[in-house]
Amino acid sequence: MSSPIRVTVWGEYRHEKKNPKVAEIYPDGMHNTIAGFLGKQTDFTLRTATLDQPEHGLGGNVLDETDVLVWWGHMAHGEVADEVVARVKTRVLEGMGLIVLHSGHYAKIFKALMGTTCSLKWRESTDKERLWNLMPSHPITQGIGDYFEIPQEEMYGEPFGIPTPDELLFVSWFTGGEVFRSGATWYRGNGRVFYFRPGHETYPTYHQSEVQTVITNAVRWAHTGVRIADVCPNSPPLEPLPEDAEAASRPTEGFK
Amino acid sequence: MSSPIRVTVWGEYRHEKKNPKVAEIYPDGMHNTIAGFLGKQTDFTLRTATLDQPEHGLGGNVLDETDVLVWWGHMAHGEVADEVVARVKTRVLEGMGLIVLHSGHYAKIFKALMGTTCSLKWRESTDKERLWNLMPSHPITQGIGDYFEIPQEEMYGEPFGIPTPDELLFVSWFTGGEVFRSGATWYRGNGRVFYFRPGHETYPTYHQSEVQTVITNAVRWAHTGVRIADVCPNSPPLEPLPEDAEAASRPTEGFK
Amino acid sequence: MSSPIRVTVWGEYRHEKKNPKVAEIYPDGMHNTIAGFLGKQTDFTLRTATLDQPEHGLGGNVLDETDVLVWWGHMAHGEVADEVVARVKTRVLEGMGLIVLHSGHYAKIFKALMGTTCSLKWRESTDKERLWNLMPSHPITQGIGDYFEIPQEEMYGEPFGIPTPDELLFVSWFTGGEVFRSGATWYRGNGRVFYFRPGHETYPTYHQSEVQTVITNAVRWAHTGVRIADVCPNSPPLEPLPEDAEAASRPTEGFK
Amino acid sequence: MSSPIRVTVWGEYRHEKKNPKVAEIYPDGMHNTIAGFLGKQTDFTLRTATLDQPEHGLGGNVLDETDVLVWWGHMAHGEVADEVVARVKTRVLEGMGLIVLHSGHYAKIFKALMGTTCSLKWRESTDKERLWNLMPSHPITQGIGDYFEIPQEEMYGEPFGIPTPDELLFVSWFTGGEVFRSGATWYRGNGRVFYFRPGHETYPTYHQSEVQTVITNAVRWAHTGVRIADVCPNSPPLEPLPEDAEAASRPTEGFK
Repeated sequence: MSSPIRVTVWGEYRHEKKNPKVAEIYPDGMHNTIAGFLGKQTDFTLRTATLDQPEHGLGGNVLDETDVLVWWGHMAHGEVADEVVARVKTRVLEGMGLIVLHSGHYAKIFKALMGTTCSLKWRESTDKERLWNLMPSHPITQGIGDYFEIPQEEMYGEPFGIPTPDELLFVSWFTGGEVFRSGATWYRGNGRVFYFRPGHETYPTYHQSEVQTVITNAVRWAHTGVRIADVCPNSPPLEPLPEDAEAASRPTEGFK
Repeated sequence: MSSPIRVTVWGEYRHEKKNPKVAEIYPDGMHNTIAGFLGKQTDFTLRTATLDQPEHGLGGNVLDETDVLVWWGHMAHGEVADEVVARVKTRVLEGMGLIVLHSGHYAKIFKALMGTTCSLKWRESTDKERLWNLMPSHPITQGIGDYFEIPQEEMYGEPFGIPTPDELLFVSWFTGGEVFRSGATWYRGNGRVFYFRPGHETYPTYHQSEVQTVITNAVRWAHTGVRIADVCPNSPPLEPLPEDAEAASRPTEGFK
Repeated sequence: MSSPIRVTVWGEYRHEKKNPKVAEIYPDGMHNTIAGFLGKQTDFTLRTATLDQPEHGLGGNVLDETDVLVWWGHMAHGEVADEVVARVKTRVLEGMGLIVLHSGHYAKIFKALMGTTCSLKWRESTDKERLWNLMPSHPITQGIGDYFEIPQEEMYGEPFGIPTPDELLFVSWFTGGEVFRSGATWYRGNGRVFYFRPGHETYPTYHQSEVQTVITNAVRWAHTGVRIADVCPNSPPLEPLPEDAEAASRPTEGFK
Repeated sequence: MSSPIRVTVWGEYRHEKKNPKVAEIYPDGMHNTIAGFLGKQTDFTLRTATLDQPEHGLGGNVLDETDVLVWWGHMAHGEVADEVVARVKTRVLEGMGLIVLHSGHYAKIFKALMGTTCSLKWRESTDKERLWNLMPSHPITQGIGDYFEIPQEEMYGEPFGIPTPDELLFVSWFTGGEVFRSGATWYRGNGRVFYFRPGHETYPTYHQSEVQTVITNAVRWAHTGVRIADVCPNSPPLEPLPEDAEAASRPTEGFK
């Protein structure tokens, strides 16, 4: 396990260019802020990719050379090419880790892996968010105590249209009266998926140390170290089968 | 709960027309055999639909008037229109039950709801299948003892590329040395999904009483009685929020 | 399914006799209030049992004649005889339903079935509780909308020391800033267990209609209709095994 | 993470002293064979403990200084003192890893953590066992391909009386026609539990490389690195609560 974990941070990178408030918080884009704190880990190597690059920055060998992909998108989910989504999905199912942040709940890649609407309640207002830690011994929650707070955040509320998580790590409390499953994991194929709620673009959420700790832990957790291609093999028997002339002679048709 | 459960049995209905062996077993098509035994339940009403009908038999009000959809397909998964798959998926997420049979593991609708490859090992030979009952008190397994056997069936083997089932009901043993998670459930949105492995077209599997019992039980289990449309609502607070002039004045952009 | 569901409501029945405030809310004891609203269902038959009865009211044929047991205890968990707990546990594992209410999280029977501490945070103060409905199509949540509120309740907060629920139905928001998994289900053996948080003795919680709806739904859900005794059988093979003289001659010792 | 993982291997160590066949396979006891192969890992430190030692070898600081405990017992489950079982359980819930092997399914500690019967079918005969790998990217299955075989093993069959595993890693196929969930994980409190089926005392199972690989992987997976004591704290509010003179004046009674 001595080779580094290769992390790619994908950012939509549109709000930062259009909204001066967002640009002030993330002058180089959210993806660079995230890559910046992750890059301090000596066992990670980082690259970034954005929507407006060719193939959204995910062409060539990028996915082949990515162990864990971090995804932030919001206003332009529809512009992500289906072909790229399909390649990312295949790569996850083969063993890549995927960390989906905040409004990425509606990203094509997250919806494709979940199979559900991924809908939720939401409100941009003056809510405080308090994230309660339900699994204090899970690798992703190390360094976080019983809870941590984000002074201002967009509210996301239940019901959240996701499949039953394999592990539910965080549940959020919001000032305005809602709750939300704000940290959850799923195995999908040979890959591991972590959804983490915080990160509205108009707040400095990714500059907060607890948020950085969770995302850093999640990268390490999501790294499986395997790549297993999909096959649906016709398999010879491992034990003797009865002979059956009739069966042997019947036509095989169609395909699996 | 006195109104009947409205069941639609969808059959690809191709093997039956092409392969005399299949036609002999299912002269009116597998869908009619399945609808036949389900129709004996006085609390079910039945209809059928097939691939070669307009909109694959699922146009008009059919999905609106379906509580539980049973699906068998194999050699023509690719011919099912994406638009129809999307409507079925939406209907499941709103609360319809879906029972996916055998080679339907590769149906577009099943893969879309699971988010995974749904791949497996397979072999057409002379295997016997023995299905072990892991949850003897589950509604779907009532009337089945510890296990039941199918004298000849196609082998499906692990690893099966599915997400962790919410409930694992059956695991199969095959003569040739494999095992398979052959009965499993998932909530998807407000709908319930049951995958049931048996039913290769060249064997009289759907004429077997235990198989009929399981599918009948599954229809009743999959009936939620609800229909809840997807929304992603902007929600006003339920508790007082602090005033924050700066927050109130900032531009809202993008969309949820 | 035409025979009625036999429900036994077990109440500790101590607070009501000691604390005038509790007696005012539940003059006949909480168990009778709960049995009262459940008894309005024409498909239920009700009986009650309390701590200070011989064998805590659970001797003779009571457990044999109970399909679903509802449990409320608090200040005298330690007085429940281990022998009675063992019989209740056995009966649950055979197929009885068990609904554990509020401070029953620390009942011996609940801890024995969960295998964990079942600890939590708590506070008696002026909190409001709002229970969010995470599974709007689950049988237990029918008749409940997105959420419901209890004007005053004791606060219970995460982390709650339970195993991963099979199904997480409700998460509570409390005024003071906490969240809690307040409705959850588990299969245990052939029985079904539902934990439901509300019901502090000094508030009229069990007089509230939404609470009554949830408990009523839960009784119906928890009724499995089966009773399967525990065995650990030495099983003859179902398929031919190779002969092996050495194996056949070796001594069998110990026990399973 | 540079400090070693402290592993204690607990062996009942009775069959080895009574049955010459077992003694021939495990001349120093199964616990020493297991400790022997685990001790080759440079990041593990090993000790052993056995039933007939004072406090079954688990007194003093042993549990305090154990990160992962491996457990093999069979013919003398009833001789393990309840007090020791309680201490082991507390330690698991605080964060210790526990690996339960084979007939340990009926160990008091496993039953106490599962809350169920843990019963199963069994047969000592000439079965071959083939363990299928359901999660090829899980840390515990690394180095194992699609499956591995044990030439002769005791048969364990479904239904296995366990709660739904958090993760199901292996399912076994047996010559005689049965299947079994032979590798499964559960979080219990802050600890991680792995049950692994193979290891009947009359076969050289723990000398087999794949079995050693799985147990070695499991030790690393079960190591949480945390220790969190159980508390059930009365918690002050984190947000302002309404004043309510009546509530403030009411008596608090009982205990949590």
